[in-house]
Amino acid sequence: MPNDLAQRLLDGDKRALARAISLVEDDDPAGWELVREVYPQTGRAAVIGFTGPPGVGKSTLIGALTKAERAKERDVAVLSIDPSSPFTHGALLGDRIRLSEHFLDPGVFIRSMANRGALGGLSEAALQAALLMDAAGKDVVFLETVGVGQAEVDVIDHADTVVLVLQPGSGDSIQALKAGVMEIPDVIVVNKADHPLTDTMIREIRGVLALAPHEEGRWRIPVVRAEAARGTGVEEVVEALDAHRAHIEAEGTLLERRRRNLMNEVLALATFRLRRRLEASVREDADVQKLLDQVVERRLDPASAAGSILERGDP
Amino acid sequence: MPNDLAQRLLDGDKRALARAISLVEDDDPAGWELVREVYPQTGRAAVIGFTGPPGVGKSTLIGALTKAERAKERDVAVLSIDPSSPFTHGALLGDRIRLSEHFLDPGVFIRSMANRGALGGLSEAALQAALLMDAAGKDVVFLETVGVGQAEVDVIDHADTVVLVLQPGSGDSIQALKAGVMEIPDVIVVNKADHPLTDTMIREIRGVLALAPHEEGRWRIPVVRAEAARGTGVEEVVEALDAHRAHIEAEGTLLERRRRNLMNEVLALATFRLRRRLEASVREDADVQKLLDQVVERRLDPASAAGSILERGDP
Repeated sequence: MPNDLAQRLLDGDKRALARAISLVEDDDPAGWELVREVYPQTGRAAVIGFTGPPGVGKSTLIGALTKAERAKERDVAVLSIDPSSPFTHGALLGDRIRLSEHFLDPGVFIRSMANRGALGGLSEAALQAALLMDAAGKDVVFLETVGVGQAEVDVIDHADTVVLVLQPGSGDSIQALKAGVMEIPDVIVVNKADHPLTDTMIREIRGVLALAPHEEGRWRIPVVRAEAARGTGVEEVVEALDAHRAHIEAEGTLLERRRRNLMNEVLALATFRLRRRLEASVREDADVQKLLDQVVERRLDPASAAGSILERGDP
Repeated sequence: MPNDLAQRLLDGDKRALARAISLVEDDDPAGWELVREVYPQTGRAAVIGFTGPPGVGKSTLIGALTKAERAKERDVAVLSIDPSSPFTHGALLGDRIRLSEHFLDPGVFIRSMANRGALGGLSEAALQAALLMDAAGKDVVFLETVGVGQAEVDVIDHADTVVLVLQPGSGDSIQALKAGVMEIPDVIVVNKADHPLTDTMIREIRGVLALAPHEEGRWRIPVVRAEAARGTGVEEVVEALDAHRAHIEAEGTLLERRRRNLMNEVLALATFRLRRRLEASVREDADVQKLLDQVVERRLDPASAAGSILERGDP
């Protein structure tokens, strides 16, 4: 009874939401059907993505922000993405413990996704989960990524507001910002700001940000100092998030950003399905098998084989 | 004159190899043409992939192995993959310095790739680069990944032999092995083995490995202790690598493994091209634009839009 599930989801039922996300994560057709059904009710939640090197305290900050949002009676969902890197599971477990004080609050929904999936799978499942959280009436959806790979960057692309969390001494991140390797976020939080190098760090960040071309009406990226573990600076982060949201709503950039993100999402989903069709054709098609044999025998290079498969026009 | 470049590459010219890899990395058609031309000359190099958490000393180990292989007069190529995570650039730089003693040796070719590329791009470019190194007559190609995300896993899939490098105390990795999250490697190196917890670690690893079903003729994964920075245990690692190669050649699993890897590669390349065609159709096709408008207006969900685009049958 997916319809019943959809209704319970739209009513904000926590267990319905959990069930729905599991369907999506398991790639169950009922999950996609459900997203289709509730999609018109989405677009209201503020989706906020957090990025930054491991160990800077992203989870602690999200825990503190959740508390602050709850004090304003906003419903919160947290989606933690762990691209099934075997080396970060310990960290993830620690993160969950940090969020545990919110587990019993009916206004807070916490979920982690670690499904490795196939090509592009995790990021797509994450967006569907975020849409379901949105449809369930959450006011704020926090997207947290554990690692630092491409999968996480793709996940963060679903956010309306991107927060970069740093800690004093992470000079690499400053270099990356400077070199343009890292996309400029909307809000920067310098966490663990009791560190003696905090002022230096903030000066460096401002220096990098000052290099950006100055335009009238452009969003000025706030650099907030915080000690999330003690709750210091958290209110300032909430204010910065609200200010950014007000800005992108007023400027129309929220719509623009969502349009771009949704377009990428549609492309990623289409590509993912094409890949599946290709895989099926490889398993079933004798001609494709022959091409692969030639590749293995070093008579045909992989790129030419890929080209030949595509020219056959099936998928 | 790509033909001339191909000949110089096959003759082992270092600059030709560097130029060829740049062509591939820049996605220049001449690069793909070149791979096509030299592909029949590939398949001779032993391709060895290294994985493991950051900081365990993978680069130091590769540096030491390079020295050992050179002492046996084997030509070596090292390909370091950094999936352009902004947070690991510092580490990468450090790694390059550790390999610097080999920069002037004509028998050693060192290259790092950090090109972010589009979907699937880095892993594909890395394989093409490895093929070029192979064609240039390198006896051994070391593939090193810096991060721990999906992109790195894909890169490691190109290897004939996979080495997992750990250091005493990395209990998370043991858990991941145990849980089956991490694929079982062919050789395990416990580096920094002067640590007091080394024996405990090795016992734990053997415990996990003992859980695997025992089959006649199955490769027994060696667990080698090393202090790569001091050169200790490096010869044992070389022996383990050679033994693994001899085993997979004798058992026929080398061919099997390469067949599977090449098949995945062909699929990835085909998917990558399909994605590009889709992107072009999105830019140019008014019907696709209309579908996207409906997604932005929340009238059509992303997955249904993806389905509709595919049903049109163009790409």
